[in-house]
Amino acid sequence: MRTERVRSWWGWGWEDAAIGEAERAGLLARLPPHWVADELPVPRVADLELRTPRVDAPESVRPICTVHPHVRAAHTYGKAYRDVIRALRGDLGVAPDVVAYPETEAQIVEILDWAGDANVAVIPYGGGSSVVGGIEYRGDVHAGVLSLDLTRMDRVLEVDRTSRAALIQAGALGPVLESQLAPHGYTLRHFPQSFEFSTLGGWLATRAGGHFAMRHTHIDDFVEALRVVSPSGISQTRRLPASGAGPSPDRLFLGSEGTLGVITQAWVRLQDRPVHKASRAISFGDFAVGLDAVRAIAQSGLDPSNCRLLDEAEAAINAGRADGRAVLVLGFESADHPVDTALVRALEIAAEHGGSVDAKSTQDSVGDWRTAFLRMPYVRDALARSGVIVETFETACTWDAAVRVCDEIRDGVRAATAEICGEPGLVTGRVTHVYPDGVAPYFTVIARARRGGEVQMWDQIKAAASDILSGLGASITHHHAVGRDHLRWYEAQRPDPYGEVLRAAKHSLDPRGVLNPGVLFA
Amino acid sequence: MRTERVRSWWGWGWEDAAIGEAERAGLLARLPPHWVADELPVPRVADLELRTPRVDAPESVRPICTVHPHVRAAHTYGKAYRDVIRALRGDLGVAPDVVAYPETEAQIVEILDWAGDANVAVIPYGGGSSVVGGIEYRGDVHAGVLSLDLTRMDRVLEVDRTSRAALIQAGALGPVLESQLAPHGYTLRHFPQSFEFSTLGGWLATRAGGHFAMRHTHIDDFVEALRVVSPSGISQTRRLPASGAGPSPDRLFLGSEGTLGVITQAWVRLQDRPVHKASRAISFGDFAVGLDAVRAIAQSGLDPSNCRLLDEAEAAINAGRADGRAVLVLGFESADHPVDTALVRALEIAAEHGGSVDAKSTQDSVGDWRTAFLRMPYVRDALARSGVIVETFETACTWDAAVRVCDEIRDGVRAATAEICGEPGLVTGRVTHVYPDGVAPYFTVIARARRGGEVQMWDQIKAAASDILSGLGASITHHHAVGRDHLRWYEAQRPDPYGEVLRAAKHSLDPRGVLNPGVLFA
Repeated sequence: MRTERVRSWWGWGWEDAAIGEAERAGLLARLPPHWVADELPVPRVADLELRTPRVDAPESVRPICTVHPHVRAAHTYGKAYRDVIRALRGDLGVAPDVVAYPETEAQIVEILDWAGDANVAVIPYGGGSSVVGGIEYRGDVHAGVLSLDLTRMDRVLEVDRTSRAALIQAGALGPVLESQLAPHGYTLRHFPQSFEFSTLGGWLATRAGGHFAMRHTHIDDFVEALRVVSPSGISQTRRLPASGAGPSPDRLFLGSEGTLGVITQAWVRLQDRPVHKASRAISFGDFAVGLDAVRAIAQSGLDPSNCRLLDEAEAAINAGRADGRAVLVLGFESADHPVDTALVRALEIAAEHGGSVDAKSTQDSVGDWRTAFLRMPYVRDALARSGVIVETFETACTWDAAVRVCDEIRDGVRAATAEICGEPGLVTGRVTHVYPDGVAPYFTVIARARRGGEVQMWDQIKAAASDILSGLGASITHHHAVGRDHLRWYEAQRPDPYGEVLRAAKHSLDPRGVLNPGVLFA
Repeated sequence: MRTERVRSWWGWGWEDAAIGEAERAGLLARLPPHWVADELPVPRVADLELRTPRVDAPESVRPICTVHPHVRAAHTYGKAYRDVIRALRGDLGVAPDVVAYPETEAQIVEILDWAGDANVAVIPYGGGSSVVGGIEYRGDVHAGVLSLDLTRMDRVLEVDRTSRAALIQAGALGPVLESQLAPHGYTLRHFPQSFEFSTLGGWLATRAGGHFAMRHTHIDDFVEALRVVSPSGISQTRRLPASGAGPSPDRLFLGSEGTLGVITQAWVRLQDRPVHKASRAISFGDFAVGLDAVRAIAQSGLDPSNCRLLDEAEAAINAGRADGRAVLVLGFESADHPVDTALVRALEIAAEHGGSVDAKSTQDSVGDWRTAFLRMPYVRDALARSGVIVETFETACTWDAAVRVCDEIRDGVRAATAEICGEPGLVTGRVTHVYPDGVAPYFTVIARARRGGEVQMWDQIKAAASDILSGLGASITHHHAVGRDHLRWYEAQRPDPYGEVLRAAKHSLDPRGVLNPGVLFA
């Protein structure tokens, strides 16, 4: 008998992987006791009040559509804190009327044609892991909403061993595509935190950031060619390692977040599985000193595959350190040649910049961090249910602005939570990706929620953090995308004439405005 | 007394660097004697028949405009073979009416406003090194033509040492910007063949390919932020090391070839000057064997900075080899750490794939090649004057297609020249840039011209080569851009819905259609 694991409809991941009673108690014990509220219960799907579907998919695609309440509920929101809270409260007024699971491109074309005629919003769902309101309908001008779930289009269609590339359908979740590449000895090696619950198409549409601290950071750089179905037609780009022929067509669709077309498949660059690996944990007196070392390493041309700097608080919470030092997890890997020399040189640079190689064994620090990293969304859900706001912000900025951005976010979010939540929250920081000319800092805030006011409080904290980033000229997002939650600040970041170009592109590709309305465009 | 070097108005480079009598005789001696015709004389500028300027720049910018015949003649064409021939024949009917040398962005805005009102085509000139008809007006619907030469806007405005980046005005020619970066200890290290005679803005607008065989190949990857003046307004993108906020605005302007706006300045990533260098020449039994070795090196993650494979004919002509072998010039460099280990491993891979390290000293092979490389455009001009067609084609394709693309281009162009020129030309090939998933091959054709029919013959050869590339799904260009000469094949390469998007972008940014009409859009 085969038992399938069940995805949570209201929160992160697998139902059977949710935080259990004992683990929850342990987590809560580390918080100020007055922060902890009674646990929000998970509503039964049968008790959810979902409105009667307002629209009917056309007969020809009805077999691949469903109006099942569990499916509709699960496709209503992404996985931000505000999404989880609303789902737990049964606030599912914007649930899609129907969820479609196309198996062919022709079905997608049919759905888009029908949606245009019937004025139905179509929301490409990806893996549903958006934390920026990317898959939630918030408008009021459409006759209905269809959530387009491509996870049945999840095949690796072709592997080109000579060019080390594969043609993969966009609906493949991370593990699904990796398991098909493994027998060929290849890997895509794109491991965002959401890896298990996000798709190739979602990564492409949101310019996702993966495993690598340097170089192959964004999925953008893995792309040889895209195939995109828009209401106005199908764009198939040519499979090329590089091109100088006009503005890159792929780069228009990368980051288009389902507003310009549905990415159905892509030729992507693969890698051989690494066989040479070397890593170390290095500690620093404080985060700013660590940042300096990381900058020097990032500018050395050594290109570590892993280069995550955790600030003091983050190191304490997620890497089990109690010495108040910042920690850098540094790793090199190669499928071709030993990487020890590179690691030795990087450690030298770190030492020149005040770092000391961790006495604690590398494997422990790295392992602790990795486990904590993948568990984090489950922890977030457990805390959310118990009255604690947990949220993350991320950005990118040039090195000259790095310390200021980190300091101002930390201070500003602490101040904002003091005002919004009645007492300052805990703000921790880390560096997830580095570049020769800059860095992608990532922050977590944990604060006390007021029951019933969680979503509003979250919105206020988000606004405070986003205003700070925007004011400093940092990006509103490095790899979480824009969605609906970042729209206001994205509009400030995007040059106006370019905004008009995007609008024109939208009008050209999706003239009836059915694709993910509200994302990227107000 | 300071003597300024004078740029050739009709051909490549400096007048004083042109091929002299003795060198010319040596070149011609290597060709079949019946290919050589009487040398076309260079017309005196005073004898050129340029039409009377049809339009007058507005008073406010008149001081930065000129109608001097020498300047107008020099701004009429790029530097393709067909350009040189037409210039030598005094065929300058499409000369711009006026050439403007703006010193401020305000002047550019003024010129664009006036051009829109007066229906004057504005052609951003860059350094004038286009080989694809990128700066030549071919239309008939405009009241006049203004060539916009930004070389007076050539300053490095700011250097950010922390982020290792600089804000540079777009009109800076290669040596001009490098000489300003040198005192800071930095370099942009973007060295296309046209380096001396092309500008940062031209590189950005055409997605130029530089020095590096891998990684920092295209100027695209050097860009932090752009500032672009379009008739509809100014786009200033945010200075970021990376971003996931919507489709990249920079990537729309990169490759827009002056059709969507005038790039006025850019924040670009710099590099420390390399201090560790190692290189070798390796020879192979034939080009296909060499390609296999290059592929293995490109997929190793070693990232050589130089990895140029010359085929047998190219090695004979330009690297002074007489043994009929293909030659790989392989180099590593770093500002931080020794690169010997990387070179040793790369040589190991090359040996595993049938390569033998050249007995001839590296420095000679590399030096011979480099000198020949930079001399090539001067040689081309000398041959062009003496009745020989010399032209280059370049492309990019995935590795699985590499051998076929190279073979078909070689055979196809040889067959085309046999038909067009009455006897087959000499076709040589090399690899200029490599990627883990593909390669950029580059071909030179030398063939016998028929006096008076040169341009038509060139067009026919170009069409034959381009049809082959297009039919094989290779890019119509890897780094020479689209211009006017590649337009037909570019349109086939560009997905139709994306073509409509670009048209919409053009209409949005340049509603009166004055910017470089005829490029990218028919």
